[in-house]
Amino acid sequence: MTNLDWGTPVVAPDPALVAAARDRLEGLATPAGALGRLGELAIWVAATQGAVPPAPIEHVRAVVFAGDHGVADHGVSAYPKAITGAMVRTFLSGRAGVSVLAAQHGVSLRVLDLGVEEDLADVDPAVKAFKVRHGSGAIHLEDALTADELQRSLTAGARIAEDEIAAGAQLLIGGDMGIGNTTPAAALIAASLGLPATEVTGRGTGVDDTALAHKIALVQQALDRAGDRVDDPVQTLQALGSADLAASAAFLATAARSGVPVLLDGVISVAAALLADRLAPGAAAWFAAGHRSTEPAQSLALDKLGLDPVLDLGMRLGEGSGAVAAVPLVRSAGLLLSDVALLADLLP
Amino acid sequence: MTNLDWGTPVVAPDPALVAAARDRLEGLATPAGALGRLGELAIWVAATQGAVPPAPIEHVRAVVFAGDHGVADHGVSAYPKAITGAMVRTFLSGRAGVSVLAAQHGVSLRVLDLGVEEDLADVDPAVKAFKVRHGSGAIHLEDALTADELQRSLTAGARIAEDEIAAGAQLLIGGDMGIGNTTPAAALIAASLGLPATEVTGRGTGVDDTALAHKIALVQQALDRAGDRVDDPVQTLQALGSADLAASAAFLATAARSGVPVLLDGVISVAAALLADRLAPGAAAWFAAGHRSTEPAQSLALDKLGLDPVLDLGMRLGEGSGAVAAVPLVRSAGLLLSDVALLADLLP
Repeated sequence: MTNLDWGTPVVAPDPALVAAARDRLEGLATPAGALGRLGELAIWVAATQGAVPPAPIEHVRAVVFAGDHGVADHGVSAYPKAITGAMVRTFLSGRAGVSVLAAQHGVSLRVLDLGVEEDLADVDPAVKAFKVRHGSGAIHLEDALTADELQRSLTAGARIAEDEIAAGAQLLIGGDMGIGNTTPAAALIAASLGLPATEVTGRGTGVDDTALAHKIALVQQALDRAGDRVDDPVQTLQALGSADLAASAAFLATAARSGVPVLLDGVISVAAALLADRLAPGAAAWFAAGHRSTEPAQSLALDKLGLDPVLDLGMRLGEGSGAVAAVPLVRSAGLLLSDVALLADLLP
Repeated sequence: MTNLDWGTPVVAPDPALVAAARDRLEGLATPAGALGRLGELAIWVAATQGAVPPAPIEHVRAVVFAGDHGVADHGVSAYPKAITGAMVRTFLSGRAGVSVLAAQHGVSLRVLDLGVEEDLADVDPAVKAFKVRHGSGAIHLEDALTADELQRSLTAGARIAEDEIAAGAQLLIGGDMGIGNTTPAAALIAASLGLPATEVTGRGTGVDDTALAHKIALVQQALDRAGDRVDDPVQTLQALGSADLAASAAFLATAARSGVPVLLDGVISVAAALLADRLAPGAAAWFAAGHRSTEPAQSLALDKLGLDPVLDLGMRLGEGSGAVAAVPLVRSAGLLLSDVALLADLLP
């Protein structure tokens, strides 16, 4: 039984715990405000964990949602779709960027094929347990998913979150893999913020000026095609998303509804978070932002969610890599709040 | 025998290794530039280590240089000098900010009293093995150190670096503890960059507007008193530094001269780095910047050294805390360059 009570507001972290965490922060034997953003992050860690001081964040679990996108056949990416399947295999071999970072930080990493075009016949069937279709629709020409496929994607995302939480996750991360995926992400963010394609569309893995202009035109075509269906988050995902993005959004919404904090990654993750916050209003209180991507839509969506990233390193690898790179700092924030001496203990 | 060959240029990391590291970075199975600053940091890690791909950075060693400053009796700090000794004891108990972060990241942490006013009679004598004096001079009124004390401080810093390198350091960090120490740090940076006190002086641990104006006046008074002695780095440290700052500068210069990379911290560490680069021209090639402090002088000095910080979290705790917080990202940079798949390996 999945936790798909869309539309019902999410319960926020307990304000009394937020206050208690702030009191403890102000009582540390450090100058007021000297921890900067780590101090604010420490309050979020304690409040979302429901404990002041917070426990060490040992169990971090990341899921990479992989899928292809019909738009990738229409000149929006510097890479061919065949890369998506090749990268799924690279994740499984432990040699993708996020795999290396996850191993460094003891983060559990699970790769799931929600909508990769390839069959991936040689890959462990568990990776394909939630596969919804072989490539989502080209959103400028057609809906990404049928209504049934959308529901299956949402159910999959919720179920995956529940599995990860049952496995003991104290902090969740949703990553992505899919050639062309910055195009639906930009469309989802534009649709959710009421912005034109020109303001949200970036270079993704690195297209040139001509391809960028073309990409902007396709995003706008997709937005025009969707029309006022974008007022509804489920319709938005069906029209402009993909199996992997819809599952990601449900994964994030389910984490928030279950009271498990999430560290967001780049533009794909933040697009999913924006939809999660529409599916489950208030979900963003359970999210922190791991890093600032070079994609303009990511910063616009983070502003809307009221989130300020921990890292700003000009990364644009995707995969969840920016979030996993930021895990030690989230852990540091919690440890500083729990382990630094209190002024009251130092005074005679 | 310490390595105090001041004035002789430092040998830069081998350009052939820089080129080989860049080639490997460009050959990774990631889009060009997708690792952002971590890619540039990876090149620095490989080049300063002298190995492509680089080895994991397991042995990171941090030294906190503690000392008091006569200016602290003249209204430049929100805290009394007695805090310096209390914090030395807090480091030793493992409950200071940097202690918590060092324990998290497996960083060796050594606290040394170079010029604390207190006797610290209750503290392990090893902590005081390099003590030069009880509080350095009030720099707006007198030299921080005598010529002999300055030489002892420089020799101590060089010797401490040599000890840490002999203990196996692959990466060194210099931290600080000392009430009032942002005042000599601002003066050292102003003196080295030819700037007036108004441009370099910040709020330190958090003084109000009136105290800030007073602090600016004292920094300018110190600069005026030093006059053209600031053209010489040794004279600059004697007039405007302190036992702990002079030792830090020699520590950093010795690391660079020994070919061991350093991760810099906030304004105190970067002031010492600027002097290290004057004592040992070219030393900055061996330095990376851990974090951006809220002190204006730190950013000015980093610009001069050509360094861009890994973290920008509004921290102003000192102690080496910003550098230690950034250690996982320096490790990540190296690991990404060594462990991510090469495109050539993925192609059939």
